[in-house]
Amino acid sequence: MPLMKSWIASANSADTDFPLNNLPYGVFSVGNDDPRCGVAIGDMILDLAAAEDAGLVTLTEYPLFDVPFWNEVMEEGPAVWAALRDRLTQLLAEGSAEQAKVEPLLVPMRDVQMHLPMVVAEYTDFYAGRHHATNVGTMFRGAENALPPNWLHIPIGYNGRASSVVVSGTDIRRPWGQLKGPNDDKPRFAPCARFDIELEMGAIVGTPSDGPLTVDEADAAIFGYVLLNDWSARDIQAWEYQPLGPFQAKATATTISPWIVTKAALEPFRTSTPEREVELLDHLKDTGPMLYDINLSVSIAPEGKDASVIARTNYSELYYSAAQQLAHHTTAGSPMTPGDLLGSGTISGAEKSERGSLLELSWGGKEPITLDTGETRSFIEDGDTLGLHGHAAGDGYRIGFGDCMGTLLPALDDPYKR
Amino acid sequence: MPLMKSWIASANSADTDFPLNNLPYGVFSVGNDDPRCGVAIGDMILDLAAAEDAGLVTLTEYPLFDVPFWNEVMEEGPAVWAALRDRLTQLLAEGSAEQAKVEPLLVPMRDVQMHLPMVVAEYTDFYAGRHHATNVGTMFRGAENALPPNWLHIPIGYNGRASSVVVSGTDIRRPWGQLKGPNDDKPRFAPCARFDIELEMGAIVGTPSDGPLTVDEADAAIFGYVLLNDWSARDIQAWEYQPLGPFQAKATATTISPWIVTKAALEPFRTSTPEREVELLDHLKDTGPMLYDINLSVSIAPEGKDASVIARTNYSELYYSAAQQLAHHTTAGSPMTPGDLLGSGTISGAEKSERGSLLELSWGGKEPITLDTGETRSFIEDGDTLGLHGHAAGDGYRIGFGDCMGTLLPALDDPYKR
Repeated sequence: MPLMKSWIASANSADTDFPLNNLPYGVFSVGNDDPRCGVAIGDMILDLAAAEDAGLVTLTEYPLFDVPFWNEVMEEGPAVWAALRDRLTQLLAEGSAEQAKVEPLLVPMRDVQMHLPMVVAEYTDFYAGRHHATNVGTMFRGAENALPPNWLHIPIGYNGRASSVVVSGTDIRRPWGQLKGPNDDKPRFAPCARFDIELEMGAIVGTPSDGPLTVDEADAAIFGYVLLNDWSARDIQAWEYQPLGPFQAKATATTISPWIVTKAALEPFRTSTPEREVELLDHLKDTGPMLYDINLSVSIAPEGKDASVIARTNYSELYYSAAQQLAHHTTAGSPMTPGDLLGSGTISGAEKSERGSLLELSWGGKEPITLDTGETRSFIEDGDTLGLHGHAAGDGYRIGFGDCMGTLLPALDDPYKR
Repeated sequence: MPLMKSWIASANSADTDFPLNNLPYGVFSVGNDDPRCGVAIGDMILDLAAAEDAGLVTLTEYPLFDVPFWNEVMEEGPAVWAALRDRLTQLLAEGSAEQAKVEPLLVPMRDVQMHLPMVVAEYTDFYAGRHHATNVGTMFRGAENALPPNWLHIPIGYNGRASSVVVSGTDIRRPWGQLKGPNDDKPRFAPCARFDIELEMGAIVGTPSDGPLTVDEADAAIFGYVLLNDWSARDIQAWEYQPLGPFQAKATATTISPWIVTKAALEPFRTSTPEREVELLDHLKDTGPMLYDINLSVSIAPEGKDASVIARTNYSELYYSAAQQLAHHTTAGSPMTPGDLLGSGTISGAEKSERGSLLELSWGGKEPITLDTGETRSFIEDGDTLGLHGHAAGDGYRIGFGDCMGTLLPALDDPYKR
């Protein structure tokens, strides 16, 4: 599919994240106005609450967009999602008969504050990247026990903490926690010394369900995707994670990019999961290409300095698709809710330069990486700004996700005096 | 403290769960009416939406009770909680000047349908019973590795699935899942064959927070307690739980009792945690008696038959209090929300008859237990009704929780044809 042209010039640039082919959904505010729903187009945002108010977008008998979340649209289901995309394409395409009515409802992106695009109903994090699981398993349990026996049979996942999900741009405070180093004879309560990122993508559940979903039903239930950084305290994790998994190590924050890129926008970039070493059970089998070819990268900028790209990889490196993860998530009957967020698991490629966490890039701190500035990093240092970036590369255009950024603030001297 | 007398005769019985000393909060409906907030007193419920409407309970400038959840009251904080309890005590006590106005607002408990008492914001499950952890650890990992190295230092917990929490009386469907027996050469997708209960109590977070809480602050933030049965699929759990903890094994359902028993009602029954084998770090130390002396039991009734009590234990068997769990839960900065539910972990005593799960009672199925009916059980069979029961025993009265019940329905023939 070629670039679809818009009457908004900036949307026709080959390097905008937001051409007419994309149309991602977010929640924005201007000044002290209430946050509301909008769609990104080039370097502008179309105010959907205003468009609805002006009678330009009418999908239901009740208003959908003058709220600070997309959950209500999600709940409407795929027919409304398709109708919305069609209508927005019509309004914003080159030659639109309604350009004069739409133009006053555009807001420059540089003037807005972005918010979480949805109420995060619940948050689940998976562990579905084979290179990542092998790398981390090797470091935590040794090469022989790197990949657990179940790993090739089910997408391993665990429930996360929805209240800790924040939007790109939110500062992150280095946490305190209980930890015990290999040479400590007892644990201590101290600031995390091995704070890390995880390069992931988040799939957002759109339609509710209350029983097992097939892989195809699960795919149909997904509303869209965001970039997701699952900030991780590795020293806290190493001490706490057995036997019941990570808890406080993952509780500080998870940052997501502000724009939900819809499944429809990503459709041309579908690609297959890797070849299976062992056959999946029927209820988890691929039913077609269910991953996407999305270029991903990680950058780090020390305080006041330029950013260095420290890793490049691709979403298609995952072993399990979001649809397979969601199908597995529902096998025991757990209801799913619009706004449920499913982290893909850290996405690493086979090469060292393709690893999606500092834990892997610095091999547990033993091989610090060197930034373009000449500085080295094993884990994140105070003042560092970490960024995830992602886009699918079309023919003369890109489907971008916007950036997923966060700056690490130093730990408090005393976490109980805030 | 002696029994406080009410003008409602049934509340003065020594064996009611709901004397004036208790005043637990729930959500009920009659017929097709909308669910609303109520308080239990003897065998009656005072309709608080109606009481508010009649001007009998006015705590805030806006209405609080004509909604199907207690989250808004929780958010008001401890001063309003205390004022509400004082006012209800005044209205319902023997000699109340307002008896004639209150009497028409009482609804017989036998005529109502109970609902979840709150919107479960998020659900966390702990593993804070030492006997249980030792028993399960012995079965899953051998006696030498029974208690993980971190267990005596932090209350081990993991995030659960809030959408799967249901109120007492909801039928539970035996789940399907991926499992692999010790003699299987590969996993299969099949109905769970080792479905189990976990006898727990749930602590409900009342006041929001967004940073580390001290143990005292955590105790102050708790609104009240319920009985909690964390239904568990042991065969699914054994296959999936390493390395990131239980996921689908705990996703079918968690049942809670319908009445939130407030911290104020339990105050006379405070008792200490067990002696520490190793000293806790300062931020987790006991600051006074933080557990409660609450008698707990588990019953099982095969379909159409009488119930047998299969275990009796006490809430004070826990190693960590809910306040310590909540304090630990917030160390890394995760925000807490009114309506967050914290499962205590399975509560087992030292004796075989005091074990809070069938896994422990039947020692992994090797030693089936015999019911009063003569039947034996290793795990739950289709049609069985499981019940948790609990009360603190006062001087001539009891602070009861109501029952926490659920009947197991057979697995569907094909979980994808519902």
